[in-house]
Amino acid sequence: MDDLKAAATAATRRGFLKTGLLGGAALAGSLASGRAMAEGDPVITEIQDWNRYPGDGVDARPYGQPSQFESHVVRKNVPWLTSDTISSINFTPLHELEGIITPNGLCFEGHHAGIAEIDRANHRLMINGLVDKPLVFTMADLKRFPGRENRVYFLECAANTGMEWRGSQLNGCQYTHGMIHCVMYTGVRLKHILEEAGVKAAGSWVLAEGADASAMTRSIPMEKALDDCMVAFAMNGEALRPEQGYPIRLVVPGWEGNMWVKWLRRLEVGDQPWQQREETSKYTDLLANGKARRFTWKMDVKSVITSPQVPIVHGKGRTLVSGLAWSGSGTIKRVDVSIDGGRNWHAARIDGPSLPMALHRFYYEFDWDGSEIFLQSRAIDESGFVQPTKDQLRAVRGENSIYHNNGIQTWHVNKDGGVENVEIS
Amino acid sequence: MDDLKAAATAATRRGFLKTGLLGGAALAGSLASGRAMAEGDPVITEIQDWNRYPGDGVDARPYGQPSQFESHVVRKNVPWLTSDTISSINFTPLHELEGIITPNGLCFEGHHAGIAEIDRANHRLMINGLVDKPLVFTMADLKRFPGRENRVYFLECAANTGMEWRGSQLNGCQYTHGMIHCVMYTGVRLKHILEEAGVKAAGSWVLAEGADASAMTRSIPMEKALDDCMVAFAMNGEALRPEQGYPIRLVVPGWEGNMWVKWLRRLEVGDQPWQQREETSKYTDLLANGKARRFTWKMDVKSVITSPQVPIVHGKGRTLVSGLAWSGSGTIKRVDVSIDGGRNWHAARIDGPSLPMALHRFYYEFDWDGSEIFLQSRAIDESGFVQPTKDQLRAVRGENSIYHNNGIQTWHVNKDGGVENVEIS
Repeated sequence: MDDLKAAATAATRRGFLKTGLLGGAALAGSLASGRAMAEGDPVITEIQDWNRYPGDGVDARPYGQPSQFESHVVRKNVPWLTSDTISSINFTPLHELEGIITPNGLCFEGHHAGIAEIDRANHRLMINGLVDKPLVFTMADLKRFPGRENRVYFLECAANTGMEWRGSQLNGCQYTHGMIHCVMYTGVRLKHILEEAGVKAAGSWVLAEGADASAMTRSIPMEKALDDCMVAFAMNGEALRPEQGYPIRLVVPGWEGNMWVKWLRRLEVGDQPWQQREETSKYTDLLANGKARRFTWKMDVKSVITSPQVPIVHGKGRTLVSGLAWSGSGTIKRVDVSIDGGRNWHAARIDGPSLPMALHRFYYEFDWDGSEIFLQSRAIDESGFVQPTKDQLRAVRGENSIYHNNGIQTWHVNKDGGVENVEIS
Repeated sequence: MDDLKAAATAATRRGFLKTGLLGGAALAGSLASGRAMAEGDPVITEIQDWNRYPGDGVDARPYGQPSQFESHVVRKNVPWLTSDTISSINFTPLHELEGIITPNGLCFEGHHAGIAEIDRANHRLMINGLVDKPLVFTMADLKRFPGRENRVYFLECAANTGMEWRGSQLNGCQYTHGMIHCVMYTGVRLKHILEEAGVKAAGSWVLAEGADASAMTRSIPMEKALDDCMVAFAMNGEALRPEQGYPIRLVVPGWEGNMWVKWLRRLEVGDQPWQQREETSKYTDLLANGKARRFTWKMDVKSVITSPQVPIVHGKGRTLVSGLAWSGSGTIKRVDVSIDGGRNWHAARIDGPSLPMALHRFYYEFDWDGSEIFLQSRAIDESGFVQPTKDQLRAVRGENSIYHNNGIQTWHVNKDGGVENVEIS
């Protein structure tokens, strides 16, 4: 990673804007206030039906659902990305979300053989291989196991932003950055389960295997397995959703989502990695010289502006920029925002809990004068890693990969307030 | 509150157990481990359908739902509590939940005229009264307003545990303690909105009014309004649910839920409280002497064991006790658990983020020897308030109220593992 860190922190400034920008013009505009009391606004002056008649009672919705007026806020896939939807992605609508918690119904999903529908009564977790005592856990066993814990972590697919290696191909952060979500997981620290089985001296790797039809399998180094990994059975307080691995999934904080094996049915302890399909032909990063980086597990420091993402309809004046930042190395220390494509950077305000390997929410407020702008954000994590530009990334890694693209994203806002994914260089 | 604090911290020890208990007998039992590899367990030895055939693709569920095997995890009401469901409560299934975040679909709901279904395009927030500049906000105005923030808070109805004043009447923590939830809110700090309107010197109270058919109205002292109140439009990342006040609600951290006005449409600044129905005939605490405590806004320190709540089916051995603690005064400093009805207390382990005026999750692990036990939890907050016993509460407040019961809850676990709400005195 040191090469990337050096590339990202290098103070090289290049003339790289495709189009003319604001320059140093002073930004003017009015504060976004409420309006003066509107005479004749019927919503104010007339009694509305919802104020006149009682609404549905509590028996109507044992399990609550979003408002009918939010039906546009859903996960979406990109049909041409893959050959079928059982091995595809449903992207998180980041542009519609707030804070750092993703609601369970909107967490992106990616499968390799569709969603396994498993009754928790018929699920087992086996621990075998280089252990003193092979074990099988039922869900009831896991629920009585000591050492239960609750942690908020982001989960990012290694392929998130993967279409951006060769230039802007998708529009809107739902598609460019929507392979990420962040929830509170509850489960048992993997360390306790491995200790219960007794890892033999030679045990240095753990194979995690899923119960779905793709039998997803990944090798995880013992050091990580004994550090912060969890066997999770709940997300945001309730049972895991089927598409997130119900009844249990592996949680591998800060590392690529493919390793967070869903429908987890087996953990095998061994003395070397298994070289599974999902860590050789896939989830390796092909470089320009034909060699591939392997075992690039950790997700690098990254950020994206999630609002504005739809046309700015309020016109000139005070505008709130909002976005997300995260790092597999810990917390986010700082986020900068630029409205002139990276010429000038302004410190953003990070708000909400700052938790390691969790999303961080940032804001930047400015007066939009109605000129076109080029919005960028740049995150710096607690380890000192700085989010690189896409060109800095390409200089080191070429353009062959679809994984681990954490480059700085640019959104062009035109004079009408329209927003588009662009690259400037 | 000082009287209560004194009552709660008084070291009065009384012989108060109705039935014989464990005494000092040493607890024995085996660790809850996995089982030895089960020969002949078909779920292990045979390939299951979900491992053989691909499941549903990502196009099946644009907005995700819980597993079909979790259909019992729903909000429930108690038909006899109120005359109709439009002015009733749907309780949170606390016994099925984990961590400190309540998923939006399971947050308890309580209404006074059912659920107002409002299109956000037709909603306004008016600020009037003793202000320099009366204002009306559209949702778009609020979304561009500076000072957006994200905070995790519990919301507890003042009537939560209200049926316990006169003894155990409901069974299961969904009904005894399920008028509480805890989510991450996103919105604008109320202070910024009031500053925008300009509060006149005489302005010392704020009236919050809802747009539903009950026109819910509460008086809030200016000191609180300018402190940590929010006008929230999102919960756990997505838009508020209709039953939680979509498109906006007031957030009044640590204070009784009735003040968190849903479908918020108006904030009026005045120089005295309005003495509305919901703060005079209701939401006041009738004492034994016929006087009523008024404006008892803050929710006192409280806790409840949420698991076990259904029969312990695993038999003797290592048992995990799990529960929730909270306080309107800030964070929880300590939780103690007793298995002998309050004779002996053991420090519980608090796990997960410790955030002010948010739920805290605690655990206590012990070897169950199969004897009957009386489970209790007792929380202590950062201000030093100690959760009182129910009898200590009654000694100060009588039994007339249905509000602000934060007494210690007892669960009786019988020899078969069955769990029941009891009182011991």
